[in-house]
Amino acid sequence: MQITSSPNKTIQNKDALGGHDAHAMRSVFFISDGTAITSETLGRSILSRFASVPFETFVIPYVDTLERADDAVNQINMAHQRYGYRPLVFDTIVDPVIRERINAAEAFNLDIYEGLVGKIAEEIEVEPSESIGTFHGDVDSDSYKARIDAVHFALDNDDGARTTHYDAADIILIGVSRSGKTPTSLYLALQFGIRAANYPLTEDDLFENSLPKALRPFKDKLFGLVIDTDRLVKIRNERRAGSRYASYQQCQQELRAIQGIYISQGIPNIDVSTMSIEEIATRILQMTGLKRRIG
Amino acid sequence: MQITSSPNKTIQNKDALGGHDAHAMRSVFFISDGTAITSETLGRSILSRFASVPFETFVIPYVDTLERADDAVNQINMAHQRYGYRPLVFDTIVDPVIRERINAAEAFNLDIYEGLVGKIAEEIEVEPSESIGTFHGDVDSDSYKARIDAVHFALDNDDGARTTHYDAADIILIGVSRSGKTPTSLYLALQFGIRAANYPLTEDDLFENSLPKALRPFKDKLFGLVIDTDRLVKIRNERRAGSRYASYQQCQQELRAIQGIYISQGIPNIDVSTMSIEEIATRILQMTGLKRRIG
Repeated sequence: MQITSSPNKTIQNKDALGGHDAHAMRSVFFISDGTAITSETLGRSILSRFASVPFETFVIPYVDTLERADDAVNQINMAHQRYGYRPLVFDTIVDPVIRERINAAEAFNLDIYEGLVGKIAEEIEVEPSESIGTFHGDVDSDSYKARIDAVHFALDNDDGARTTHYDAADIILIGVSRSGKTPTSLYLALQFGIRAANYPLTEDDLFENSLPKALRPFKDKLFGLVIDTDRLVKIRNERRAGSRYASYQQCQQELRAIQGIYISQGIPNIDVSTMSIEEIATRILQMTGLKRRIG
Repeated sequence: MQITSSPNKTIQNKDALGGHDAHAMRSVFFISDGTAITSETLGRSILSRFASVPFETFVIPYVDTLERADDAVNQINMAHQRYGYRPLVFDTIVDPVIRERINAAEAFNLDIYEGLVGKIAEEIEVEPSESIGTFHGDVDSDSYKARIDAVHFALDNDDGARTTHYDAADIILIGVSRSGKTPTSLYLALQFGIRAANYPLTEDDLFENSLPKALRPFKDKLFGLVIDTDRLVKIRNERRAGSRYASYQQCQQELRAIQGIYISQGIPNIDVSTMSIEEIATRILQMTGLKRRIG
């Protein structure tokens, strides 16, 4: 079975069967004997350097039998016929017999591992194993537990729901409503095992001249999110269209007030307006020097 | 600034300055001009094939100036001196001037991109751009919105907190308490934009002969998690040590009852006992055929 995602661009020239057309749809397969996370992460990152090309991507995880390999080969060959170009195949399959089967497809195969694994083996003078370990370590490991604990911590301490456990927090994100605190907290927890609480500064909080009481003892753990007014208006309108909450004036006032608080209280902060959640989380680690609990 | 993680193994022979020792600590750097997610994901996956070697890993994101490059080079050279072996460096820096600076460190450099990018450019006859796109696409894109919406959906519908929005769910995870429903729901949301609710089957639910009322209209969306008794006992004991809730007998009874429900109601299910959250989520997509909303 495959996990498809819809084409990231519309088909611009699906009849380009002969000759070369740089704008023709290209199929790309991310294939692995595991989750395919590595293959997909690397593959998408590389494809982003060919932004003018419309790619249709397919993720095929758990290709760990010859039968599944044949199924993948069929899908690749069908994509070849559909667009008239060899699909690109990124694979991280370890088993040589299964890899060989995949390599028989009518495709352009990109061997992600073998070159690198061989070079490393030579450098460190250790033979690689024939199987790949789990990416986030053993499920009984301390880091697995740290991760799950962090997720539950983020949930329990989301949106100011509870403020009595801030002594156990690694970081407390603050910001106006819908500035990205919740997804960032969860990403920090899932990806880095960091215990992130978050607290929304409401109108009442914003127009006081001091921090909310619950936050005062933990000033060193506070980290502020900033977002530009237009973007906040857009996001809030998706939630409550036409409301005062989503109005330009309201958003602007809240954002000015919160930046005043960041400055007067000396709270580190970051403008997240053009950042993905991954970027926000990584930048926060970088700026705070906070240590991951996993990875 | 760097984001360190602690060594994944203890140092076994830190004085092995001359001669080769396969059990000596090796330093590894994941370096990028962006988040370093690609570099780290690929690097860790490859290192897992050298499980006998203790690696100390460092992640250095946002190396996008010569100054930051020099800072990274210093860290690499210090690690070289510390252990007496050349550190491994996985980098995905696009700018050739910055890359050259990194390459001057006393390290074994693994060029992740260049080989692959060049091969692809030749195959598709398109020149690569000099900069890398954002990994999860533009923050104004539909997929970004789908992602954030999915995260909020997962939160609002966590742990059976609310059952009135199940018509909007892509999937409803069920299982006994602490079988991994919440982290899996959140991962499905963050990584794939899938709207995953989750509902814990409590003792009352389990010993009824039918599904809880709230779930009955949505039988087609249900997906069950299974976990082995020993592991559940361990996890619950970490939460409430010595409680009836964490006792072997209680866990065993609940797990037998829930498997009875899965069978009698024909609910697809998966044993998550030895799986990471990534694996659980990917397997669920594979088994259900559920389509991602992002990626």
